[in-house]
Amino acid sequence: MDFTASTAGLASAAADVARLLPTRVVDPVIAGLVLRATGSGVELAGNDRERAVSLSRAATVHDEGAVLVPARPFAETLRGLDEPQVRVVVEGSRLAVRTGRGRFALPLLDLHSHPGVPALPPLAGRITARVLASAVVPVAGAASKEDALPVFTGVHVQGAGSRLELIATDRYRMAYSSLPWSGGELDVLVPASLLAEVVRQPGAGDEVSLHADDDRLALAWRGGSVSTALLAAPFPDDRARKLLEATIDSTVLVEADALAGAVRRAVPYAGPHGAVTLQVDDGEVRVRGSDPQAGESEESIKATVDGNRLTKSFQARYLSDALKAFSGRRVELRIQDGLRSTVLTAQAGDDGVELTYLVVPLRTVS
Amino acid sequence: MDFTASTAGLASAAADVARLLPTRVVDPVIAGLVLRATGSGVELAGNDRERAVSLSRAATVHDEGAVLVPARPFAETLRGLDEPQVRVVVEGSRLAVRTGRGRFALPLLDLHSHPGVPALPPLAGRITARVLASAVVPVAGAASKEDALPVFTGVHVQGAGSRLELIATDRYRMAYSSLPWSGGELDVLVPASLLAEVVRQPGAGDEVSLHADDDRLALAWRGGSVSTALLAAPFPDDRARKLLEATIDSTVLVEADALAGAVRRAVPYAGPHGAVTLQVDDGEVRVRGSDPQAGESEESIKATVDGNRLTKSFQARYLSDALKAFSGRRVELRIQDGLRSTVLTAQAGDDGVELTYLVVPLRTVS
Repeated sequence: MDFTASTAGLASAAADVARLLPTRVVDPVIAGLVLRATGSGVELAGNDRERAVSLSRAATVHDEGAVLVPARPFAETLRGLDEPQVRVVVEGSRLAVRTGRGRFALPLLDLHSHPGVPALPPLAGRITARVLASAVVPVAGAASKEDALPVFTGVHVQGAGSRLELIATDRYRMAYSSLPWSGGELDVLVPASLLAEVVRQPGAGDEVSLHADDDRLALAWRGGSVSTALLAAPFPDDRARKLLEATIDSTVLVEADALAGAVRRAVPYAGPHGAVTLQVDDGEVRVRGSDPQAGESEESIKATVDGNRLTKSFQARYLSDALKAFSGRRVELRIQDGLRSTVLTAQAGDDGVELTYLVVPLRTVS
Repeated sequence: MDFTASTAGLASAAADVARLLPTRVVDPVIAGLVLRATGSGVELAGNDRERAVSLSRAATVHDEGAVLVPARPFAETLRGLDEPQVRVVVEGSRLAVRTGRGRFALPLLDLHSHPGVPALPPLAGRITARVLASAVVPVAGAASKEDALPVFTGVHVQGAGSRLELIATDRYRMAYSSLPWSGGELDVLVPASLLAEVVRQPGAGDEVSLHADDDRLALAWRGGSVSTALLAAPFPDDRARKLLEATIDSTVLVEADALAGAVRRAVPYAGPHGAVTLQVDDGEVRVRGSDPQAGESEESIKATVDGNRLTKSFQARYLSDALKAFSGRRVELRIQDGLRSTVLTAQAGDDGVELTYLVVPLRTVS
């Protein structure tokens, strides 16, 4: 194998493969990166049996071939190079990365022991990368980061009829998005952190195809694909969807970024529980914090209010996450009675993505 | 007290006071920030008995006065504000930070229990901030970050005759700088981390005055001052200075940034001990790494070589730190026999600052 390629392009692909595969695998073959040069360019790939990644880059191929090398030093070497072009060539038992005055020689691992990249499962449908990302990123952010309860680390993706629906919850907040779908049936629980990473891989305008079977979901686009094992846990759909049916006590329409700014400024006063209070008033929302050491804060944000005047307390970071999902837009807060969730929604954008975010209020002494 | 000031100016001063005082003090009074408004502006100050800080900012003072408030929420509140101007006013038992639609009210702490900012010790001499920083920053970086042996966390500052000398070592490397001095006698051991922070406070062209007595060192400039308790430990001067007298085996003149780049690129191959090898050859230095998993690297850098051809291994991070201190310049490596330190030096700059950096080589099997 022998090829010349753009250092930046090759470096970004190697970094993505190294990042999308977990960092600590005992078996160096499974932690390795497959590099394959063919007439049309080079493919960088990895498969740790949970996840499989394949990314393509343009290259001038002098000699075709395929090798397996340690992923991390290969990625770090490319990242550190100053030269715009790099030569990559097999020399004996080494893969040499060559620059004008330097040679970086990686050991060749046993390519035949590597599982390779599995074929894509059957096609379920297609969607523009930008649209998919705008639905996936806020929903994936509402999933739990703790592996103790796997079902809460996943995004439930369901395609049925003309809509694709995504839902995730960590039990303290829940996010739901719905977008136009012309594909077939789909019902999978996907690791949220991987899904959020993967939707950033293709170009914004690229078309992404979704592929699924009973065991895997794959996303593929021009020049790349990622597949992941599904989470094998029953998502509590009925309970989740029931939460979406709000009995509204008060509706507040407000600029999401203005409210997010006020919440951020109340954080130094959010106290030991990180709590901020929203007081719905005539034509405004007052954002308040109170802490025995730091003191008190109050800031008012203009709002269109419909319904009862009331007061709710929230975890500041959950409220901030929810508002961030609506950045640049007006958001509607549908506030329910007692300890029932507050529902955040906005008008669907031009891309047809509808987003609903639920935040559970804090129990307060009032 | 009542004044209006630039939010950015006040926020930077409050952040600096909060940062220069340690984060965890049990006594809220000692952790507090003194805010004093007089005809000429506002002073922000703190004193945790180890360190004292005072910074001045312009303000339109409507009503003079002084208060003590919690430093951290005050700094965080100012940092989060969008408005260019902010009003700060005492209202009952609170200091209110007021914006168009917000009010942030900090409790007033007992100003009379606060030690205040002590008077500056006697003047020892003056120096331009930029010149002082170029001598202090690399030397302070060679000090230890571990408090177990306090003497190695300090910079020994000595003024005598026409030179001010700074020296620090963590026992694996040592940095020494010398700069023109027209002040008096000075002999103090100063916490390195604080010294490195403080020299960034004044403007580059500002004149800094150094003040010292047996207990404290203070730096003062237009609009601010910081003082610190000295480290009470005898610095091993004799041994340190003996190390500066090198018996040179080989001299290598090289662009510091080119060599630093090659060392950085060898890091993925630096192995479990983080070691890189310099091989001095005809008209070049070869930078090499070797690791059982990652493979081998070799890169050659043009150099002017005088003396024996030889090979030395170093901790990559120590060598990188040393080369960074000479960034943008040609550096001379004076390599000594065996396990004696390699000495890095460069021509003194226009500012008259001379810098010498010693790195102890690694014991290697060769």
